[in-house]
Amino acid sequence: MTSASTPFGFAVPAGLQRLEHRASFGGWQDVYQHDSSATGTSMRFGIYLPPQAAHGPCPVLYWLSGLTCTEQNFIIKAGVQRYAAEHGLIVVAPDTSPRGEGVADAESYDLGQGAGFYVDATVAPWAPHFRMQTYVAEELPALVEALFPANDRRSISGHSMGGHGALVTALRHPGRYRSVSALAPISSPMQSASGQGAFSAYLGADRETWKPYDACELIAHATERLPLRVDQGLDDEFIDRSLRPELLRAACEKAGHPLDLRLHAGYDHSYYFVASFMGEHVAHHAAALKASPSL
Amino acid sequence: MTSASTPFGFAVPAGLQRLEHRASFGGWQDVYQHDSSATGTSMRFGIYLPPQAAHGPCPVLYWLSGLTCTEQNFIIKAGVQRYAAEHGLIVVAPDTSPRGEGVADAESYDLGQGAGFYVDATVAPWAPHFRMQTYVAEELPALVEALFPANDRRSISGHSMGGHGALVTALRHPGRYRSVSALAPISSPMQSASGQGAFSAYLGADRETWKPYDACELIAHATERLPLRVDQGLDDEFIDRSLRPELLRAACEKAGHPLDLRLHAGYDHSYYFVASFMGEHVAHHAAALKASPSL
Repeated sequence: MTSASTPFGFAVPAGLQRLEHRASFGGWQDVYQHDSSATGTSMRFGIYLPPQAAHGPCPVLYWLSGLTCTEQNFIIKAGVQRYAAEHGLIVVAPDTSPRGEGVADAESYDLGQGAGFYVDATVAPWAPHFRMQTYVAEELPALVEALFPANDRRSISGHSMGGHGALVTALRHPGRYRSVSALAPISSPMQSASGQGAFSAYLGADRETWKPYDACELIAHATERLPLRVDQGLDDEFIDRSLRPELLRAACEKAGHPLDLRLHAGYDHSYYFVASFMGEHVAHHAAALKASPSL
Repeated sequence: MTSASTPFGFAVPAGLQRLEHRASFGGWQDVYQHDSSATGTSMRFGIYLPPQAAHGPCPVLYWLSGLTCTEQNFIIKAGVQRYAAEHGLIVVAPDTSPRGEGVADAESYDLGQGAGFYVDATVAPWAPHFRMQTYVAEELPALVEALFPANDRRSISGHSMGGHGALVTALRHPGRYRSVSALAPISSPMQSASGQGAFSAYLGADRETWKPYDACELIAHATERLPLRVDQGLDDEFIDRSLRPELLRAACEKAGHPLDLRLHAGYDHSYYFVASFMGEHVAHHAAALKASPSL
């Protein structure tokens, strides 16, 4: 059991606004806000700094959340802090889209604010701000590595729309992440109702432009072959319509891409499912992040 | 690490309505609603059934929540399910007051619905429904032990107003609980602003009637001397005005009552604090609950 020791002091980095600062398992669960150049808006992210960050730079696990989430859902509900403290990982959880006045939105829960789908939009009215792929893959890691006690060892994971985001972001950037995993991901947005609606809005009608954001398409051409760890509840209410793990399995089998797909009877789509398997995912990433750099 | 296996089947007990049923760490995090005879209202409670409950009756840890909480806050934020699954404990978390139409309420966050203070009110308009002491100490355990795979080994804990509730409920009922603990409890409602307001409303102006609901008063006359385990964050924003752990320490020292009071620099009043020490509290209760009955 992790003994919750007194957290170390940590000053607010220049250029950031600290909205929350809460001792957690001997470290700090913070929330920051900053002006993002990628989205042209103010963006929020949660960051857990483990006790080990008092003694030197730590590797970073990025977490991408699902539809309707902000940075809060994961940091409140997943129980990740205990595992991050055990393994000495920083965990960064951004919001799921740009928000605020002047940012386009839609009535539907699966388009617009809270539903960025981790793409860089190219079509009006989304293109000016909905540049979440650049934000999560480039701007946010650069910021974290410059301003926090973080090294450049990165892993990425996420849930549902964020599971799609994690798979796609890792597949699009060979060499950038040490490991990737997902819980109940949208396996192929191009073959899900929410994904088709979002991609047509953000990227336009030409489906060729969708492929660089579809895990099953990217797997066919992947050069890195980072093993994919995926957990999926079999009582998940979105499994047939939106998540479709069978598409991910088929794409990996066809391409010979390594996939560790674990199906769990009884589990649904909620954060109770995420929390139940969070420890295994953090351990999976910790092993990759702590392995010799030459491997 | 607890492997999250497939949860067992569990049918809804007669007389209860199941509102939530979510697989969690190989067991079930459920929420039930029932007609309470104590409060004369419909009451909700969360119950975690660990994997061990598939094989026979398990001991029960009762959790009492703080001001403004429902049964949801604890089951979402505390991360208790992992520890309960490890130790084989059922965890029951009731709502903090009666609610609904026809139930008295107040504008203030610390009186009325969401603020039952775990007393049996004697004064209008609260007396008809605000009978939370009878509910948590008698009706709920009887229901749980009759309808769930629970034995009659009980422990009790809670946070803030619920920490007060746990201490008082255990002290009022010698022999009923195997162990008691609290996180950031209101040590003496009679000497806190919120407590004075609530007790005068629920119990009337005669302070003698308040003493059976004040831990520091009860400790002076306790016969059982169940050790009190209490954790308190030193950056808790309510420590000086409402929680006042120094009163609990003084009462225990004066009476020679065993107290394990642990103060934690940096920690605040939030569920990030609760989650950080939840594992130690569950282990503390599990040890008492699994000890030989003759001890």
